[in-house]
Amino acid sequence: MSKYAIGLDYGTNSCRSLLINLENGAELGSTVFPYPSGEQGILTDSADPNIARQNPQDYLDGLQAIICEAIKQAKQNDPAFDPANVLGIGVDTTGSTPIPVDEAGTPLGLKPEFANNANAMVWLWKDHTSHEEAAQITATAEKMRPEYLAKCGGIYSSEWWWSKIWRCLKTDLEVFAAAHSWVEHCDWIPAVLTGTTRPDQISRSTCAAGHKAMFNDQWGGLPDKEFLSQLDPALADLRDRLYDQTFSSDHKAGGLTAEWAEKLGLPEGIAVAVGAFDAHMGAVGSGVKEGTLVKILGTSTCDITVAPNSKTLADIPGLCGVANESVLPDHYGIEAGQSAVGDTFLWFVHNLVPDSYGKTIGKKFDNMETELAKQKPGESGLLALDWNNGNRTILVDVRLTGLLLGQTLHTKAHEIYRALIEATAFGALTIIKRMQEHGVEVREVVNTGGLSLKNETLMQIYADVIGLPMKVAASEQTCAMGSALFGAVASGSVTLQEVQQASCKIQEKIYTPDPENQKTYAKIYTLYRELHDAFGTAEWQGKMNHVMKDLIDLRQQARSEK
Amino acid sequence: MSKYAIGLDYGTNSCRSLLINLENGAELGSTVFPYPSGEQGILTDSADPNIARQNPQDYLDGLQAIICEAIKQAKQNDPAFDPANVLGIGVDTTGSTPIPVDEAGTPLGLKPEFANNANAMVWLWKDHTSHEEAAQITATAEKMRPEYLAKCGGIYSSEWWWSKIWRCLKTDLEVFAAAHSWVEHCDWIPAVLTGTTRPDQISRSTCAAGHKAMFNDQWGGLPDKEFLSQLDPALADLRDRLYDQTFSSDHKAGGLTAEWAEKLGLPEGIAVAVGAFDAHMGAVGSGVKEGTLVKILGTSTCDITVAPNSKTLADIPGLCGVANESVLPDHYGIEAGQSAVGDTFLWFVHNLVPDSYGKTIGKKFDNMETELAKQKPGESGLLALDWNNGNRTILVDVRLTGLLLGQTLHTKAHEIYRALIEATAFGALTIIKRMQEHGVEVREVVNTGGLSLKNETLMQIYADVIGLPMKVAASEQTCAMGSALFGAVASGSVTLQEVQQASCKIQEKIYTPDPENQKTYAKIYTLYRELHDAFGTAEWQGKMNHVMKDLIDLRQQARSEK
Repeated sequence: MSKYAIGLDYGTNSCRSLLINLENGAELGSTVFPYPSGEQGILTDSADPNIARQNPQDYLDGLQAIICEAIKQAKQNDPAFDPANVLGIGVDTTGSTPIPVDEAGTPLGLKPEFANNANAMVWLWKDHTSHEEAAQITATAEKMRPEYLAKCGGIYSSEWWWSKIWRCLKTDLEVFAAAHSWVEHCDWIPAVLTGTTRPDQISRSTCAAGHKAMFNDQWGGLPDKEFLSQLDPALADLRDRLYDQTFSSDHKAGGLTAEWAEKLGLPEGIAVAVGAFDAHMGAVGSGVKEGTLVKILGTSTCDITVAPNSKTLADIPGLCGVANESVLPDHYGIEAGQSAVGDTFLWFVHNLVPDSYGKTIGKKFDNMETELAKQKPGESGLLALDWNNGNRTILVDVRLTGLLLGQTLHTKAHEIYRALIEATAFGALTIIKRMQEHGVEVREVVNTGGLSLKNETLMQIYADVIGLPMKVAASEQTCAMGSALFGAVASGSVTLQEVQQASCKIQEKIYTPDPENQKTYAKIYTLYRELHDAFGTAEWQGKMNHVMKDLIDLRQQARSEK
Repeated sequence: MSKYAIGLDYGTNSCRSLLINLENGAELGSTVFPYPSGEQGILTDSADPNIARQNPQDYLDGLQAIICEAIKQAKQNDPAFDPANVLGIGVDTTGSTPIPVDEAGTPLGLKPEFANNANAMVWLWKDHTSHEEAAQITATAEKMRPEYLAKCGGIYSSEWWWSKIWRCLKTDLEVFAAAHSWVEHCDWIPAVLTGTTRPDQISRSTCAAGHKAMFNDQWGGLPDKEFLSQLDPALADLRDRLYDQTFSSDHKAGGLTAEWAEKLGLPEGIAVAVGAFDAHMGAVGSGVKEGTLVKILGTSTCDITVAPNSKTLADIPGLCGVANESVLPDHYGIEAGQSAVGDTFLWFVHNLVPDSYGKTIGKKFDNMETELAKQKPGESGLLALDWNNGNRTILVDVRLTGLLLGQTLHTKAHEIYRALIEATAFGALTIIKRMQEHGVEVREVVNTGGLSLKNETLMQIYADVIGLPMKVAASEQTCAMGSALFGAVASGSVTLQEVQQASCKIQEKIYTPDPENQKTYAKIYTLYRELHDAFGTAEWQGKMNHVMKDLIDLRQQARSEK
């Protein structure tokens, strides 16, 4: 008799469900609920483009809708499906996405007195109003607690927990005072389903705390009061109303309440797993394990792998996050990323590709891919840096910009597009090398996300540049898949390893490195790395005058071989 | 009673005439004759894109047509005009554009037996079949006669005299053997008009010989036989059938023959000046003098000035040509250039500007110029190198390529266009600085050529970057104007100074540097120069990691001031 699990994936503009058969990962039901509030679910403010908030009611409305629809579909798709055999529910969300709550755990934004105050709403990860606070936290930690920064790559971000809460304190004392505590979105959904919303009852996510709130057992959990007082004494006071313990997602946040069980048509008391962030769940849903790096290829990328926590892992310079058990139990979760990948291609096609390639963005991409698939590595003579949105890993520097060289009077748009793809591949290789140099094994890469599914030329270039087979996760919903797996594991009746093996498949098509291309790309990577280090580090010294000439030589060689 | 002169300007695709009143430079007649042969006047070969030849018959057909039409127009435009008052004719052409001729001075290409042999035709300057010969000449001169290279910037070009002739020797012995001598296009037209086509009678141009044939009185004229033998003994033999004396264009090549006088309706015996290259004549027609740099702004640029030859001028590193009296009598002619200016903009608009800027190339340029005129220096955060076609001056290196940095996810096409314009301005400033550092005065810049007439934004950027007022020559036919002036001077009845003063006007609109913009551009130029030296020279050492950050700072400053 098959067992099932449900995964919930709360994204930036919508939430979705996935109901799977744990025997084989079959996806029996899935639906999307676009958040109804604001612009595509985001509460914005024309006076300040940095503002990005959400309405907590959207999360609740979506919760019931997506689970019920998934169950309905599962019943249609599999006559043997019985909701009684659902082992549990797992949840992932964006983050850091903190919610101010009252003593009962009710989001302030749901209370009538704050209904029209954006500061009482959910502070979405991409809200950048707190960039000054982030800079001050970085500066203070550099002086007082450099160890805090070492775990998050050296720079604290405006996308993260403390920056946002401090910003609220600085700009809306009424909301800050009314907030008894703050809760991550990924912690609040399981709390709702399990009736544990009182802040002192909520099971807080190791993943969210470790990667975004500077929580680490090495220094006793959250940042200490002396440090927080240095920012603002009110933050030190808040610390007492937050948490001193966190849980990985193989833990049960609680059992499904009777009320929700009835609403959803599921058994009362089934496991609801502790939540985590989408990328981490996506890694699990893609089959992350020791030696396997998962690349979530989207507008930016998130690169996630794990290393056993049985031995200490030294800090890895430039990696934006190493947190214990943030991905898998008994492992360090290791997170890296590239600030712009798909976004760079979109920028290029929107701004610099003439209509001779097609009238729509889609046609332009298609025709450019047709053209560039005919080219050999090195043939264009171009080389780019993938820094149009700064560099998250390994330089952790937003004050970097794009670079393109090698242009002649004959350079075509599709050649530049290829150079941009190659640049992101070189950036990906740089991350992998950094991991490997610091004792993290990477033997294979599993890709997930839009680009991995639809851009074959890109995947082949990645294989040729990185020199490892590029696999693609079979599921197109790897985040919800990971959540579902943890929902099952939290029930205590299955292990993560067994459900991951059963459910996390890869697509048949594997992109294998071409040895000739690999050789050429190894030469071009040397040049990329020189530009990378020259423009991105203070330590570099050397010569630049060979770069253009080496590229011309490679170009001539590539053309002569055609 | 006014005196008149006629200038003939033989370009790449057509020739044109200009008949002026020497009292005031009034342009009374002008017409264009497109060469009828080949593609836009160029004999090409689909099997070898490097081939570019011309049919000498086109020159002869054009000669009569353009002079007669100019006279006809002058009669219509000015009732007082009388052909009897034409003092002389001057001629400029492209170059180096050598023609193989027989003992009588008849181009081989006009002889029936060679009518179908492209090698017997005129070898147009842009014929690049001889790139290997050019490289061998450079290598041989480096070893044997470094002084030859010092006068032409360190590298001998495939666009020049000896490369082309040697190429003919190597690939078509029949033509080479039939060629009693070789004549520059600019020497052949005056020879035709004056009936002095026999090679030993032709007055050879100082300008062509000095800039392209390594002719210099310092070493006794043309390269010596030992050097030429090292290339090929047949070239050393040819030296005896070339020339050992050259003339500047204030000299008379001869008097108009009775036959041509009749064909053209001009007095027999009037002066025909020794020819010169188009850019040099254009400089004269733009009013070049000590302290005045003339920039001929086209697809590439030619920058020309003069320095008195009363004192020795040391070699200027990286300047592609210093030749005595190649521009003005009693002066060194100093020639520099940028390999791609208008060509870079054309490349950009053809390949990387979307139709949102307009459906035609013209509209795209117009709309981009409207947009970029709203921007302040530094505002885009972009910086480019102007090397899409290599760097002619001051690096003399064709193995260089374009570079653009500072791109973000918000960079627009018109911002890149501005960065490309700025890059060419920085390149122009680098040339001026090099001249000034070696004792050549540059106090003002007079611009001529298409871009100076139609791109006001570009002209203002040039003024702000270079820090000198940008003037624009009043005549739109400065090359033909310069030729006409020399036609008059060769008559012996006027001096160049007096006719230049009377005829070479500048347009009312002068582009004056804006002090604020100048300050910002001085900062950006420092960064340009660092990139220039880092990527372009072996000597550079330093750091690159501040470049992107400095540009971000300048961008923020520019935006905050808006």
